[in-house]
Amino acid sequence: MNEEGCMGMETRARVLIDCQDAKGLVYKISKVFYDRDLNIDSNREFVDKAKGRFFMRTVVSGSFEIDELDRALREVAPADAQIRVIAPKDKKIVLLATKESHALGDIFIRHMAGELGAKISCVIANHETLRDLVERFDIPFYHISAEGLSREAHEEKVMAKIDEHTFDYIVLAKYMRILTPSFVSAYPERIINIHHSFLPAFIGANPYKQAYERGVKIIGATAHFVTDDLDEGPIIAQDVIPVNHRFDWREMQRAGRDVEKVVLSRALDLVLHDRVFVNGNKTIVF
Amino acid sequence: MNEEGCMGMETRARVLIDCQDAKGLVYKISKVFYDRDLNIDSNREFVDKAKGRFFMRTVVSGSFEIDELDRALREVAPADAQIRVIAPKDKKIVLLATKESHALGDIFIRHMAGELGAKISCVIANHETLRDLVERFDIPFYHISAEGLSREAHEEKVMAKIDEHTFDYIVLAKYMRILTPSFVSAYPERIINIHHSFLPAFIGANPYKQAYERGVKIIGATAHFVTDDLDEGPIIAQDVIPVNHRFDWREMQRAGRDVEKVVLSRALDLVLHDRVFVNGNKTIVF
Amino acid sequence: MNEEGCMGMETRARVLIDCQDAKGLVYKISKVFYDRDLNIDSNREFVDKAKGRFFMRTVVSGSFEIDELDRALREVAPADAQIRVIAPKDKKIVLLATKESHALGDIFIRHMAGELGAKISCVIANHETLRDLVERFDIPFYHISAEGLSREAHEEKVMAKIDEHTFDYIVLAKYMRILTPSFVSAYPERIINIHHSFLPAFIGANPYKQAYERGVKIIGATAHFVTDDLDEGPIIAQDVIPVNHRFDWREMQRAGRDVEKVVLSRALDLVLHDRVFVNGNKTIVF
Amino acid sequence: MNEEGCMGMETRARVLIDCQDAKGLVYKISKVFYDRDLNIDSNREFVDKAKGRFFMRTVVSGSFEIDELDRALREVAPADAQIRVIAPKDKKIVLLATKESHALGDIFIRHMAGELGAKISCVIANHETLRDLVERFDIPFYHISAEGLSREAHEEKVMAKIDEHTFDYIVLAKYMRILTPSFVSAYPERIINIHHSFLPAFIGANPYKQAYERGVKIIGATAHFVTDDLDEGPIIAQDVIPVNHRFDWREMQRAGRDVEKVVLSRALDLVLHDRVFVNGNKTIVF
Repeated sequence: MNEEGCMGMETRARVLIDCQDAKGLVYKISKVFYDRDLNIDSNREFVDKAKGRFFMRTVVSGSFEIDELDRALREVAPADAQIRVIAPKDKKIVLLATKESHALGDIFIRHMAGELGAKISCVIANHETLRDLVERFDIPFYHISAEGLSREAHEEKVMAKIDEHTFDYIVLAKYMRILTPSFVSAYPERIINIHHSFLPAFIGANPYKQAYERGVKIIGATAHFVTDDLDEGPIIAQDVIPVNHRFDWREMQRAGRDVEKVVLSRALDLVLHDRVFVNGNKTIVF
Repeated sequence: MNEEGCMGMETRARVLIDCQDAKGLVYKISKVFYDRDLNIDSNREFVDKAKGRFFMRTVVSGSFEIDELDRALREVAPADAQIRVIAPKDKKIVLLATKESHALGDIFIRHMAGELGAKISCVIANHETLRDLVERFDIPFYHISAEGLSREAHEEKVMAKIDEHTFDYIVLAKYMRILTPSFVSAYPERIINIHHSFLPAFIGANPYKQAYERGVKIIGATAHFVTDDLDEGPIIAQDVIPVNHRFDWREMQRAGRDVEKVVLSRALDLVLHDRVFVNGNKTIVF
Repeated sequence: MNEEGCMGMETRARVLIDCQDAKGLVYKISKVFYDRDLNIDSNREFVDKAKGRFFMRTVVSGSFEIDELDRALREVAPADAQIRVIAPKDKKIVLLATKESHALGDIFIRHMAGELGAKISCVIANHETLRDLVERFDIPFYHISAEGLSREAHEEKVMAKIDEHTFDYIVLAKYMRILTPSFVSAYPERIINIHHSFLPAFIGANPYKQAYERGVKIIGATAHFVTDDLDEGPIIAQDVIPVNHRFDWREMQRAGRDVEKVVLSRALDLVLHDRVFVNGNKTIVF
Repeated sequence: MNEEGCMGMETRARVLIDCQDAKGLVYKISKVFYDRDLNIDSNREFVDKAKGRFFMRTVVSGSFEIDELDRALREVAPADAQIRVIAPKDKKIVLLATKESHALGDIFIRHMAGELGAKISCVIANHETLRDLVERFDIPFYHISAEGLSREAHEEKVMAKIDEHTFDYIVLAKYMRILTPSFVSAYPERIINIHHSFLPAFIGANPYKQAYERGVKIIGATAHFVTDDLDEGPIIAQDVIPVNHRFDWREMQRAGRDVEKVVLSRALDLVLHDRVFVNGNKTIVF
């Protein structure tokens, strides 16, 4: 929270380092901070031993220049290191949706309360349904119908509209279309999706109906980065709620919405505060 | 809880009725109780509208005979009705295990505290590992090794040992062998299993390793009746616990044990108190 | 869900009965339904043995008149019985709020999606802060400032405004004013509040700060009917979320908002579907 | 977990540092590790900004001597620093209990499976009830009755028995006696307690009965270090389970036991792996 602040002449930045593990990394990196007389406001590290990979997220403050700090860190880090020195400021997101309003609405309410940590560039939907809600919040709404279009042709139009905007992340807030690999590969580690999850998992049409038929006692939701497959990719956040035999499938779906919206908003909050590293097909969440 | 009591000359019974739904069922059944001047100590009903099926569990007390009540209920219920009038008393269970002690141990501690609601006839295991623990609780332990035996030959020996005992349910307390259809069909709706569950699900060897590779943020457990497939069948209870990137797969497994043992014990408690109806591939839990 | 439907000439109603326990109640009540050839679409009963009190909620459908059914039930029920035969239709609510938008916003989004099960008559707030949000949803907003007014004088103005509207329930959606006994007693069992809850509980100013000082690992929320005291009264729903030492008190408060809004909406859903009986200082939730 | 291992000539240690926050701490400490060519196997830090306090837990491995490392760290750390360099090995615990077996039993089962991370020196109880269970696990059991003794006289006998044993922690596994300040101050930060927790909290006799009367929908448990007051002190772990109107107070108590035992074992695991810092009246849990 207080990370966002900036007192007097002080600069503040989030430093994210992701590199091959090696002896002395913490020492060398902290020396860079020490030599510049920086405060370490928070610091978290993790070593994935199976992969031999080092992750570090540090919030530093003091009198320094972002570029100079970035260069200095690159000098001490291994050659493969991904280093980001980020001045905290609101990111921008593009939202994709279809007909359901729960995930979108939750984001709007947080946005209006100044708690989202992001600006909303626009909402793109493949149906008109949500226009009224979106426009009440003075957010540009674009309806790009998929009717009569091939998947590729529709996606091309969606991507063209996305690319008219500046954004850090694309958030699929219950966007009920399957993305092609070319869409996904155009925005690597920048697409976030929410989808229902069950124990066991169900594949195919109407998973809530399947979950109902199967008599599950728990309904979950998973927020994740999108890679090749719509419902796969590094998991950012998950949660569940209990259900029972008295729920029909529509009630299960309704209960599922509550957990979906909360999990998506929690994941967004983590991503927008630069707390999430992608590590192969998993995440490190600091 | 108090269901178990029996005051003075009073009889107490759990009445479980499962039949095709029809108008007037509650009226006709409650008339049977009313005509005998019985108290209804608790009563729950459910209609599965999709299947047109009626479920009722009533605890009655008063001056009556179990057999007479059973006959009277059969007269008013539809022809297909499954009616059980059960005098509450401890059931008997046979436990199957392999090497892990968490689920078994939890059952033993409850048993010794008088809270299990069942007698433990014996433990049968395909390894020697658990003998020491089991015998400390004065419970018969049988080691039936699978070494050098075909699946069928081993199962035959296990079934022979099971059948030497009286029991109401067979509880797979982390029994790490796949059961054949002939085993399962020998004990319909009488085998209860606990298994780990993930979002998404993982099939094949070492699911905890797969869950770790996939970076899940939640680990779950499912207790269910065993039908054809070891990890399928009507779900009785489920729960989850959160994990994070700092858990390696062994720690995930260890965390999973806590939820496994609690979910299995909760499911057992429900089944042993006759609170669970099997309804096709689902359960009704009252 | 399907409760709401109405097919052909069929009438549907929720029957709620709350009376002293007595033998034969289920029989006598179900006979009333049987004699009218009604379907029982769902039925739940509970006997509070400590208090000797019987609760029943039945959804019936068929060809009947609400008033006639009500009269017939009164004939068979004990003299003290509270009987309600309710034709399902949207209830009306008045919302009271202060500055925070999370609980209000969650209700608005559900309302706009047609999932609230209630009409919103108006929002009354003791600050201007929320006017913009409320009016975006075309809901009447009244700002009644408490500045310069005694608690009684302010409440009088609020009550006058409330009474200009028709409503079934008053929902305190983070209304940060303490209500006087005269306010509370004017709307018995009709005021619903949400408040943060902790283990242990904290009394006095800024409970989140106290919870932070105390290092709680869990933050909860309780939705309840308001009786004498703002934060007491029969509990309808509760839930919690985990926190840890890295949360400062503002982050705890922010995390708390997520659970507050979900718990309030869940409680509202129960109350608006007539699923909640008040039983002394507790509730029966069917 | 793997922390415990030791390969070849390698030494492994947990380093815990707790001191006033200052610039350059991470640099200076990591330099000590770097100069000795140590591996950092895991590292977590936290700064309590409100108190200006720094906490660090690092697992290092390599070729070094515990005492030399300890001295070197003291040279670079602030004068007030509490520094512990701990070679991982099983700790010892003394268990105090009364009549209930659930918390004790859970610890025994983990112990026997080699998962507790501690040796159990003995169990001391103020009743005979648990002797049978304890002795089945070959653990010394001492019954010290409080009958006819003042609180002080009883405690003196208990403390004398405790002091005959070597131990790192005293675990109150449902020990239903209130401790005097002199007992508590004799073992600072070394007594761990588990107690039920409710929203709201209940003080006085039979809190489960009070929780039942109040109609709570959630029952919790809190594991904490004991300071002055039995049920206060820095919280280590908390969790809850849902209950409903169908639970009488004995069933609430029984449900509460499941969460109590799991929370106590989780807290013990954290403490025994040196993952918990006491920070005033709170904890830092790494």
